[in-house]
Amino acid sequence: MHNGEKKSSNIFAVEHRIATEDRWQRNNHRSGILWFTGLSGAGKTTLALELERQLHLKGYQIYVLDGDNIRGGLNSDLGFSPEDRIENIRRIGEVATLFADAGFIVIAAFISPYRQDRRLARKILPSRFHEVYLNSELKTCEKRDPKGLYRKARLGEIPDFTGVSAPYEAPENPELVINTNDQPVANCLARLIDYAEREFGVPSALTGVA
Amino acid sequence: MHNGEKKSSNIFAVEHRIATEDRWQRNNHRSGILWFTGLSGAGKTTLALELERQLHLKGYQIYVLDGDNIRGGLNSDLGFSPEDRIENIRRIGEVATLFADAGFIVIAAFISPYRQDRRLARKILPSRFHEVYLNSELKTCEKRDPKGLYRKARLGEIPDFTGVSAPYEAPENPELVINTNDQPVANCLARLIDYAEREFGVPSALTGVA
Repeated sequence: MHNGEKKSSNIFAVEHRIATEDRWQRNNHRSGILWFTGLSGAGKTTLALELERQLHLKGYQIYVLDGDNIRGGLNSDLGFSPEDRIENIRRIGEVATLFADAGFIVIAAFISPYRQDRRLARKILPSRFHEVYLNSELKTCEKRDPKGLYRKARLGEIPDFTGVSAPYEAPENPELVINTNDQPVANCLARLIDYAEREFGVPSALTGVA
Repeated sequence: MHNGEKKSSNIFAVEHRIATEDRWQRNNHRSGILWFTGLSGAGKTTLALELERQLHLKGYQIYVLDGDNIRGGLNSDLGFSPEDRIENIRRIGEVATLFADAGFIVIAAFISPYRQDRRLARKILPSRFHEVYLNSELKTCEKRDPKGLYRKARLGEIPDFTGVSAPYEAPENPELVINTNDQPVANCLARLIDYAEREFGVPSALTGVA
């Protein structure tokens, strides 16, 4: 499944694992990664959880990875230094790949401000990686400030805050751009559902597609 | 979902996530972690993959975490030093918890030789953690030596090899013990299926059980 240099050795590929395609047949949809990127306040969590709810109701196997279930658990040993941010995104990319391998549509909802980090995440499973850019202007995000983080960042209470004291590198070729600056949530959501159903939900494409 | 000291801050619990119990209803079975522990050659991988296949055919959502999909990916930055082995098991416990949260029966198949590491893995999700001890004598495992690792360890080519040059601490109170020393694979498998169906598969218990 993975390539590249490994620190660990003495690992043997194992036969007779359930193929991802068998899981697609079972679930009646394909799997993959929806990688949400955007500023704090751009709507990542809101849209991820609402998309999860809607697709769950439609019968999809879907799961959201976000700060709430990653930062407190798997990545609780990581802070916000440059090295830790890279490692944070790397691990999320690997876990998302496991979920895609297990037949899930997995939404990774993280600011993930650096192109290079997102590029590395994509590289793990390029054929099933969908970069979704939630595009909203900084001033709009700052006005929303749902968690009061921009205010704290402006007061200097949070160092290296994306958009304030650290850069956000917008995607150059994302699979999907959602304008969350002035579109209502319902519109954004409709576009996301449409995209997901088109990419993951075509039963007629389930045979012979790897 | 998680407790304890966190290095990262500014994380807010999010509402309206799909409850694990809703996933149980969808899948018609409960979720949880089957943590396989035992010596190299005790049958962890064989039994994990065969159990996965059988339960998949019975309609369960099930996934195996093992060296093949973890050591090459998420934990490819880790070696076999004591600190790295601890971190290896910690991350596997966290990922297994995400899968259990997502509605899966997840089998973690790793030697995991230290009681303290397994105890920490259990602590993440104690109510859904099932320690399964695959018990086989060292001499039997060494005779099987499916990957030729014991031979290499005896030649000194692999340092700190469990059972040869590093200890294996058998579980004291595992939820299930499978004698893989002289029982045929089919018998071991039958016991595992029986256990899993009893623990995860009772539709009448799906209501109101957290």
